Amino acid sequence: MKAVVFFATGFEECEALIVVDILRRAGIETVMVSVTELLEVESSRHIVLRADAMAADVDYASADLIVLPGGRLGTENLKDSRAIQDIVKDFAADKMIAAICAAPSILASLGLLDGRQATCHPDYENQMAGAILTHESVTVDGNIITGQGLGTTFDFAFEIVKRLIGNRKVQQIKTAICYK
Amino acid sequence: MKAVVFFATGFEECEALIVVDILRRAGIETVMVSVTELLEVESSRHIVLRADAMAADVDYASADLIVLPGGRLGTENLKDSRAIQDIVKDFAADKMIAAICAAPSILASLGLLDGRQATCHPDYENQMAGAILTHESVTVDGNIITGQGLGTTFDFAFEIVKRLIGNRKVQQIKTAICYK
Repeated sequence: MKAVVFFATGFEECEALIVVDILRRAGIETVMVSVTELLEVESSRHIVLRADAMAADVDYASADLIVLPGGRLGTENLKDSRAIQDIVKDFAADKMIAAICAAPSILASLGLLDGRQATCHPDYENQMAGAILTHESVTVDGNIITGQGLGTTFDFAFEIVKRLIGNRKVQQIKTAICYK
Repeated sequence: MKAVVFFATGFEECEALIVVDILRRAGIETVMVSVTELLEVESSRHIVLRADAMAADVDYASADLIVLPGGRLGTENLKDSRAIQDIVKDFAADKMIAAICAAPSILASLGLLDGRQATCHPDYENQMAGAILTHESVTVDGNIITGQGLGTTFDFAFEIVKRLIGNRKVQQIKTAICYK
């Protein structure tokens, strides 16, 4: 199993990194991919980290899942990238997409949530045209997993692991990290 | 209010970064301090990030709180640092210390938990000599806050904000990040 997590300037740090952490604990190959001009990417609260690869250099054909973290500016930067738009549309056809907080609005803007159940941060519900909003912490509709916000990121990551690996692995990780 | 969060090689990334994120949301000046030879520090799951300052360059007199994240190797590296030992002992006298997961064992090794209530990761309970173990998610005893593990980091961070700022700020942040 292989996952790609996108890092754009202004990404919500822990929405991205909790997912990377939990997926790596689950044994899923997880590639941190920069959607800027450099491997170094600055988060919404000014934490600079180094991604593993540049967006143009990734073999998406071998990936099972893409993850779109939120953050106001991070989401704008992902939404404005033509390359990301094309990758998201490709994955929507037959692979898995996970988006949290502001980022589900990227899927809505591409028409991918029309008639589908989804959740997002309350501040972005007006940018979810076509979606059936659930207002839940995490929502799954077919191959699209959406999460509400930073405070729901563990459950969002567990839902991804459940779909890619299985619930037994989720329970193992919850025990290991003292998650109740 | 000012907090110092220590980053040693092998730190548990989200135990450190959720705290940085929540404290910055609360308006607490939060300095990410490297306890290595460089500003760049590598986490337990191989994420490299840039700290704000080197441990030797920080004005600890102006800080109200130090935070010790866990991670097996990260905790060993903090425990082995004479400089960190001295800083921890200074803060134990009249300021606030917060430690999570494996890191409460650093406090125990310095004799700072003798007769005091504390929690830690189950794997480290045998390294908590002197402490009265609560097995709780988060425990406060006087000026020492301890947390159990990665899965309790949000509650650990909220307890810090509650003590430094107040419960009203905690509730504002919980609402903003959709934390239930």
